[in-house]
Amino acid sequence: MTLSQRESSALSPREVRALNRANRLDRNTSGLCSEFVQANLVVLPLADAFDFLRFCQYNPRACPVIDVTEPGDFEPKIAAPGADLRTDIARYQLYRDGELVAEQRDILDIFNGDMVSFLIGCSYSFEHRLAKAGVPLRHHEQRIDGAPMYITNRKCVPAGRFSGRLVVTMRPVPSSLVSEAVSVTARHPESHGAPVSVGNPQSLGITDLRKPDWGEPVQLHAGDVPVFWACGVTSQQIALESKVDFMITHSSGYMFVTDISI
Amino acid sequence: MTLSQRESSALSPREVRALNRANRLDRNTSGLCSEFVQANLVVLPLADAFDFLRFCQYNPRACPVIDVTEPGDFEPKIAAPGADLRTDIARYQLYRDGELVAEQRDILDIFNGDMVSFLIGCSYSFEHRLAKAGVPLRHHEQRIDGAPMYITNRKCVPAGRFSGRLVVTMRPVPSSLVSEAVSVTARHPESHGAPVSVGNPQSLGITDLRKPDWGEPVQLHAGDVPVFWACGVTSQQIALESKVDFMITHSSGYMFVTDISI
Repeated sequence: MTLSQRESSALSPREVRALNRANRLDRNTSGLCSEFVQANLVVLPLADAFDFLRFCQYNPRACPVIDVTEPGDFEPKIAAPGADLRTDIARYQLYRDGELVAEQRDILDIFNGDMVSFLIGCSYSFEHRLAKAGVPLRHHEQRIDGAPMYITNRKCVPAGRFSGRLVVTMRPVPSSLVSEAVSVTARHPESHGAPVSVGNPQSLGITDLRKPDWGEPVQLHAGDVPVFWACGVTSQQIALESKVDFMITHSSGYMFVTDISI
Repeated sequence: MTLSQRESSALSPREVRALNRANRLDRNTSGLCSEFVQANLVVLPLADAFDFLRFCQYNPRACPVIDVTEPGDFEPKIAAPGADLRTDIARYQLYRDGELVAEQRDILDIFNGDMVSFLIGCSYSFEHRLAKAGVPLRHHEQRIDGAPMYITNRKCVPAGRFSGRLVVTMRPVPSSLVSEAVSVTARHPESHGAPVSVGNPQSLGITDLRKPDWGEPVQLHAGDVPVFWACGVTSQQIALESKVDFMITHSSGYMFVTDISI
């Protein structure tokens, strides 16, 4: 039995993780646990881990590191002591040689002692703060779970085998509230921080906002400006472009919910 | 020929590095290039690099990472493009099996393709900001180059082979200016950020402020409170406590000067 949208909105991070562990909460985590930091998961072999952690260090807007485990450990001791990264997310994706090969509800059968898990910040974490500051969330108004994501023409700083393009989320913001949106999100570097670009999709190589690379397009209201934040999906994009041998991630929108307060 | 204190105070980061490269500036970098971030250097074998970078990730107050190189690279491409970490610091220390075995003016003879260099933030970077905000720097008033450093009883979060105690710097601050000192330094997480403790040396296991573990003691004026910031020397302390096989660092107080504006 899975829970309704309404029943799940009041859950604690620990409850969300326990329900995921029992395969009872198969939903996008947008709007869940709004006072807590949510995170992207990336699991890599130890041989790639140092390069990837350097990649995150070089590209902190796209890949702010919330936690990284000891090799072989599946407990994120800083972000959520007691949690199990093999089961506590609703859906996982498995990549081999840079291609998506499977989606599954847990990774108990694949995870081994040679793997390192990274938790990377997610912009879901600051949406509640934007709303509180009076910035409308057009995608929520339009009943779309997550903000649309676009691959840009901006190259990330490479590290070892990891290189590729920056992925961004787009949220329409009324022009009079852009300053508010910038200052609210700048206070959350662990969740991508301030926008990387405001008002000009072309400057990022985005030619058509109606065609996101992930998610559904969101309509701008009259007077809205498109505002772009770096997105944790960048880590998946660079893994694909770099054709990594092996990687596990969460499925897009099905984030890991940490115990860290925003 | 080395430069006088007065001649060197107006140098740019690039000039400081070039003078160090020519062995012409054998001085503590406190007060140099006050508008630029200074950094601790840690050089480790690649085999230890992932654990050390995780250590920094787990202990960001003590070890904020300013840059980390590709293995074998001696150019810190983010912090100071064109610089050479093998020569651009005045003095280096070499550790083997957890013991200091040599101090030298460059590391051209030791550095090899298996090594990774880390630049870790330094509190020298925010001292100019404190002074500008009206917070007196008692150690400068007392003609002491750097703030005194103390090993605390506080354990860092371990990562792989790296574990050990937090090292702090102490600056006496008039009680009416403690809030100012906290808020100024909180804006500089890349340089250790806000204090880790205020007003009570005993809470950190420091029994006698007159006996620092590095540097000279600084006198408190009437009405001053001792304020403690995490210190990058923590990285040297944990390397010693963890008995790392091999490590190179700068000599205490002889920092690497980056091109990053504060």
